Amino acid sequence: MDLNFIKSLKRISDTKIVFLIIDGLGGLPYPPSGETELEKAETPNLDNLAAQGICGLQTPVATGITPGSGPGHLALFGYDPIKYQVKRGVLSALGIDFKLNPGDVAARGNFCTINEKGLVTDRRAGRIPTEKNMELCELLREIKIPNVKIFVETVKEYRFLLVLRGENLSAEINDTDPETNNKPPIEPKGLSPEAAKTAELIKEFLKQAQHKLRDKHPSNMILLRGFSKKPSWPSMEETYGLKSAAIAAYPMYKGVARLLGMNIIETGEKIREEFDSLEKNWDDYDFFYLHIKKSDSAGEDGDFTRKVEEIEKVDEQIPRLMNLNPDVVVVTGDHSTPSLLKHHSWHPVPLILYSKHCGTDNVKKFDERNCVTGALGPQFPAKNIMPLALANAKRLKKFGA
Amino acid sequence: MDLNFIKSLKRISDTKIVFLIIDGLGGLPYPPSGETELEKAETPNLDNLAAQGICGLQTPVATGITPGSGPGHLALFGYDPIKYQVKRGVLSALGIDFKLNPGDVAARGNFCTINEKGLVTDRRAGRIPTEKNMELCELLREIKIPNVKIFVETVKEYRFLLVLRGENLSAEINDTDPETNNKPPIEPKGLSPEAAKTAELIKEFLKQAQHKLRDKHPSNMILLRGFSKKPSWPSMEETYGLKSAAIAAYPMYKGVARLLGMNIIETGEKIREEFDSLEKNWDDYDFFYLHIKKSDSAGEDGDFTRKVEEIEKVDEQIPRLMNLNPDVVVVTGDHSTPSLLKHHSWHPVPLILYSKHCGTDNVKKFDERNCVTGALGPQFPAKNIMPLALANAKRLKKFGA
Repeated sequence: MDLNFIKSLKRISDTKIVFLIIDGLGGLPYPPSGETELEKAETPNLDNLAAQGICGLQTPVATGITPGSGPGHLALFGYDPIKYQVKRGVLSALGIDFKLNPGDVAARGNFCTINEKGLVTDRRAGRIPTEKNMELCELLREIKIPNVKIFVETVKEYRFLLVLRGENLSAEINDTDPETNNKPPIEPKGLSPEAAKTAELIKEFLKQAQHKLRDKHPSNMILLRGFSKKPSWPSMEETYGLKSAAIAAYPMYKGVARLLGMNIIETGEKIREEFDSLEKNWDDYDFFYLHIKKSDSAGEDGDFTRKVEEIEKVDEQIPRLMNLNPDVVVVTGDHSTPSLLKHHSWHPVPLILYSKHCGTDNVKKFDERNCVTGALGPQFPAKNIMPLALANAKRLKKFGA
Repeated sequence: MDLNFIKSLKRISDTKIVFLIIDGLGGLPYPPSGETELEKAETPNLDNLAAQGICGLQTPVATGITPGSGPGHLALFGYDPIKYQVKRGVLSALGIDFKLNPGDVAARGNFCTINEKGLVTDRRAGRIPTEKNMELCELLREIKIPNVKIFVETVKEYRFLLVLRGENLSAEINDTDPETNNKPPIEPKGLSPEAAKTAELIKEFLKQAQHKLRDKHPSNMILLRGFSKKPSWPSMEETYGLKSAAIAAYPMYKGVARLLGMNIIETGEKIREEFDSLEKNWDDYDFFYLHIKKSDSAGEDGDFTRKVEEIEKVDEQIPRLMNLNPDVVVVTGDHSTPSLLKHHSWHPVPLILYSKHCGTDNVKKFDERNCVTGALGPQFPAKNIMPLALANAKRLKKFGA
């Protein structure tokens, strides 16, 4: 649904909406029992919520598409992730909680190896350890270019973030990564006339970087990709009239929330600490995004039992949420992470939508197999969750007479 | 689905399609039993039709969107209601059965209160009674403007309809309603060069209206909104090849049907009278839209029992419909009106599609909970009902070789 269409129908109310996002929630049958993580988990409170609410399975981006965390979350917040895309430079900044100003140009950097002919021989510099990366970033920070402030930040292993801050910078710059070995890095060029000056600055940065790194083999050069500026998207408040807050302990999720204008509530990493934060800030917002990380980490580790336990820990906190008397509660994930696969997957994600007037279905247990038969169906588009939540919160006007 | 795509596949046939639209059909569990109106109602004939046909729940406009009657019906007839929008002036005309000619410019009027400084102090003139409105409309009808025929018609309370009929009129005129108090009415301006002349005519009308109403406080001025002409949309006959008729007792529904080129069959307000009209006109049309109003009125009054009774009255007539041996029958509503909420709502609407070759599912009872599990699914887009009905009526050719 078009955001402007929803915006044209928005109605201000004092109702409260909670999105409880259990990262990587969906799973697959796991041997020997053939149960999924949600089927195995004892979740009396979520089951009760499923019985009172309506259920389904939601498709974050599109059928068959495995979402990254960014697109998965944008869809949940009603922003079509195919339309609202973030490039790698900005994503890297979000991922390490680097606060981009409007106009900053961010790029994702790789340390790499080049030979005496200047050809790339390893695009990842032998996957150097993060500690080494930190030393090298220290070196790159010595680079000075007139009228531009330069930030170089370690991400992980061979990956770093480069940010240029200055007047009239452009992000219309090609990647310098040749994407294959035995080719030289590509010259950065301005892809539009306005970008010529920025391209020159980056060329100068690369020249100085090569000089600084000349005796640091295997990390004797850098490659830059995904030049981009922080997008200026309509905020959740503009679009939906929701004063919104994110309760998330990890940088990437705070970053995505910040892109949509949510306030970030500082919180601990423990699940019960996140619910503490919810209780403490309950009066101050209309919309809460509460993010649970460790279900996904367990799935990525292939640790079925730990993922089950994380889900059970969330279940224990549900009474605290319901005691706050929220008008609308959505429980789902930003994507599936089956322990069997050890990575994000394309499988639709179990979904509960609860409100006093949400309607009915026959789902009494919250898991993949039961959600198939719910009122939201087995292929509910994630981007429709937000309009439905707004309707249940009485925050949308009638369309037409 | 695009109307031109369907049109390119249309095939002429002598099959007959009936859309039985039970206004506001969908409901919510109602205390103390927790049954919906359809669950409570004794509907052996509809249940039998559900068992023979395929079922589902349809979404009139989009997930979470509460449709007005206009958009709800347009979707049922296959016209995407977000694309085919009717502005307020034309809607007001439809609502009181005022027959607009092509080129007429219609606007929705409010009687309002202005103070001695000319600022609006009440946009609805204290919600004057309809009788008062009729007196005031009589006064406004005295206004004369050269070369333009003026119609002023009471709608209800503070609302009236203004229609200008003449040569080369334009509807590209801004609303004069400031949409907030303590501001003066906005001057009508032509939003395009062609509209300048019409804007002058409206300015003259407003000047004379203000003079006529000067001592009629609180109704001492008018505001005009939604200037529009009757849209010229492709008719049901052009698009689908269906000679179509509407059996509807209330003006709004006849108006919408007329926009799509349906013939209007005069009928009584009683449900059995509408089925009389169906029988009498059976041989003359390919497509019948039969509209039941009182289920919606009962829902809007919050009268659960009366809504149940209205549904049961419809059920009694089903054998008469089936005795006509229709090729395709669709039973649904234009939106839900749960008695619990007392207004239109966003909830998907129960749907039966019956034909000899419609396929199968396991639904044996026509209600919200059972339709979730039907072959049409719990989120069927309303605008897809018409193509499916045409297919079942053998009125669509194969696409491609």
